[in-house]
Amino acid sequence: MAMNLIVGQSGGPTAVINSSLAGVYETAKNLGVNKVYGMLYGIEGLLQEKMVDLDEMLGDIMSIELLKRTPSSYLGSCRCKLPTPEQDESVYETLFRLFDKYEIGALLYIGGNDSMDTIAKLSAYGARIRSEVRFIGVPKTIDNDLMLTDHTPGYGSAAKYIATILKEVIADASVYDIRSVTVAEIMGRHAGWLAGAACMAAGPDCDGPDMILLPEVPFDPENFLKRVDDLQKSKSNVIIAASEGVKTADGTFLCDLVSTAGQLDAFGHKAILSGTSRYLADLIHDNLGCKTRAIEFSTLQRCASHLSSRVDVSEAYQVGGAAVTAALAGESGKMASLKRLASRPYHCITEMIDINAVANFEKTVPLNWITPDGTHVTKEFYEYVRPLIQSELTPIYVNGTPRHVRLG
Amino acid sequence: MAMNLIVGQSGGPTAVINSSLAGVYETAKNLGVNKVYGMLYGIEGLLQEKMVDLDEMLGDIMSIELLKRTPSSYLGSCRCKLPTPEQDESVYETLFRLFDKYEIGALLYIGGNDSMDTIAKLSAYGARIRSEVRFIGVPKTIDNDLMLTDHTPGYGSAAKYIATILKEVIADASVYDIRSVTVAEIMGRHAGWLAGAACMAAGPDCDGPDMILLPEVPFDPENFLKRVDDLQKSKSNVIIAASEGVKTADGTFLCDLVSTAGQLDAFGHKAILSGTSRYLADLIHDNLGCKTRAIEFSTLQRCASHLSSRVDVSEAYQVGGAAVTAALAGESGKMASLKRLASRPYHCITEMIDINAVANFEKTVPLNWITPDGTHVTKEFYEYVRPLIQSELTPIYVNGTPRHVRLG
Repeated sequence: MAMNLIVGQSGGPTAVINSSLAGVYETAKNLGVNKVYGMLYGIEGLLQEKMVDLDEMLGDIMSIELLKRTPSSYLGSCRCKLPTPEQDESVYETLFRLFDKYEIGALLYIGGNDSMDTIAKLSAYGARIRSEVRFIGVPKTIDNDLMLTDHTPGYGSAAKYIATILKEVIADASVYDIRSVTVAEIMGRHAGWLAGAACMAAGPDCDGPDMILLPEVPFDPENFLKRVDDLQKSKSNVIIAASEGVKTADGTFLCDLVSTAGQLDAFGHKAILSGTSRYLADLIHDNLGCKTRAIEFSTLQRCASHLSSRVDVSEAYQVGGAAVTAALAGESGKMASLKRLASRPYHCITEMIDINAVANFEKTVPLNWITPDGTHVTKEFYEYVRPLIQSELTPIYVNGTPRHVRLG
Repeated sequence: MAMNLIVGQSGGPTAVINSSLAGVYETAKNLGVNKVYGMLYGIEGLLQEKMVDLDEMLGDIMSIELLKRTPSSYLGSCRCKLPTPEQDESVYETLFRLFDKYEIGALLYIGGNDSMDTIAKLSAYGARIRSEVRFIGVPKTIDNDLMLTDHTPGYGSAAKYIATILKEVIADASVYDIRSVTVAEIMGRHAGWLAGAACMAAGPDCDGPDMILLPEVPFDPENFLKRVDDLQKSKSNVIIAASEGVKTADGTFLCDLVSTAGQLDAFGHKAILSGTSRYLADLIHDNLGCKTRAIEFSTLQRCASHLSSRVDVSEAYQVGGAAVTAALAGESGKMASLKRLASRPYHCITEMIDINAVANFEKTVPLNWITPDGTHVTKEFYEYVRPLIQSELTPIYVNGTPRHVRLG
């Protein structure tokens, strides 16, 4: 097959988005694709014809090994939502002209919700103009909020990082013989998938978090304080894992109750919803009078590739490969998704699903995976997340730090 | 030798303080010590006779392996500075009564400056009352601010963590094709050892930080902004590593220029000097108008045992062992210290030094290890820190997270 292929990365970084890129690249080469291009800075860069020939970058096996261990987006990223053709057809004309120019037969886009929207729009436009270019989405987001996939690549590594450092934070927080409450703030604006993963910190060597607060359950200050007070009767160091997206019954984010005006990201919403843990810690301190501490897990949740989940790395690679395979088989307007066949032992396969059923929908944590009092997750959540954080991809350490690979 | 021994841990946690405990315990058993007791919550717990028999806890080799991989203080800690005997002799009477009761011949105390002060006071009092109990300090602090030791156990692992996650944060921060400045806030109230370690993020795969700000150099806003502006002419994503202890020429911490009243720790000073990165990011945003981001590396710097330096783990064990060996040889009022013989190849030995030369002094970064313009560290700093972050002690992962060991 003399077709060329182009691949891009979009949206926020993850620890394994480059493993999907490795899966796309190697599968394309194995299946006889001629040239594999990478778009720089996603579709935004492509519109300016910013592209690289990946054969020059990833031609040797060591580069691929390092790529799988490199966090963030190797090709750069963007937060660009395409206009509809009705709003601005010139964008589409530019892109399809480039596809012609570079003899591109398939476009693979690794990203979250906005990226799937891009795939949906491009494939619809392509069908309208009878283009033969195929458009396939490769899922990626630590938020795990995409529909019709058991989970998203990136989530497992973020979950493993959260569970691991929470154990370390708990050990750190329990060191003095005094009453204290530690509130750890975990990413997740609208869904509690990441905060829920804190449950994996529990084991024979660690109690794990005493409470987990998710955006799916409205925050009730009275119940919350009563629960903290109860917990303090039986243990001196109480640990709370709270999603940054926890909000009150009227929909106000807790962080907005304290935080001052911050900078906006390219989408116009606040770059980081900081302040939830600070708000909760102050609430406890003011009402219960004990020592409190607020810790934000911050962006490391999405880029800590030194602690990635091997299951996650492999699955990210697999969906990349499945997407290429589908494109070469003639499919378009699809996303490669993950379908869990069993949890014990864990068994998961890829399947292709209609992009329109995914784009612009959000999956939240099922309410019956949250305890009735809204302060923890149930066994079902634990069983769900457990396989996703298993095993490691050992970093290749050079001079004391993990070696990555970078463009240019 | 039928003598018993007691060991305690004090001050803030580190990733390797338990490796020193392992070194103390195993060396004591190898040298024929009868019972090894652990004091719970340091000298404060000992005053309440809170003790454990470590043979019951650490009797098998697997426990020792896990102990070396467990962050924070296994025995609990305190932030207690002993009164002088003139202020309150009853404290000393209580302690020496306990030493008699449990037939304790040596007390080992693993900690930082305040712990060395405790050893100094106990050994002076012991000499005065002609006690035969020996008192030896085992150094520990991520801050690396103890005198007369090349470096302190705990520093190397914190440095490795900082360099590693800074690489990941840089990858994350460079993902969009827009001008931005990221300010990473690193621990170190009065000395820049930890912030300086950020230099180890640089390599063929990463530029490392473009600026490093240390407490040793007064902060000059004008020079600072000019340097950031210059940097932005040649690269779009500028990275700044800043110590939490950066202060202006008149000694005001930058964080105090923005932060509101926080809670106090047991010593009466602010638990965490947050706000330095926020202040710098806002300064840049207001004056240069580009997108900025502030990230605090927080307490994980001291407790990320999943990323500890093997050199550090081994040296922490060695100073624990050297301290016990010295105590059994009759020494008292000493600290086990590290003496570097060479950097390439790295070679370091232990030696015993007078505790009075250590306690209550603080070691800062030599000014000639900082560049003349005060915005980076020199080759000397790099050569100093390089060996300390080398090699890894692989965590023992169980069910997706590193397994630790805990008391009881």
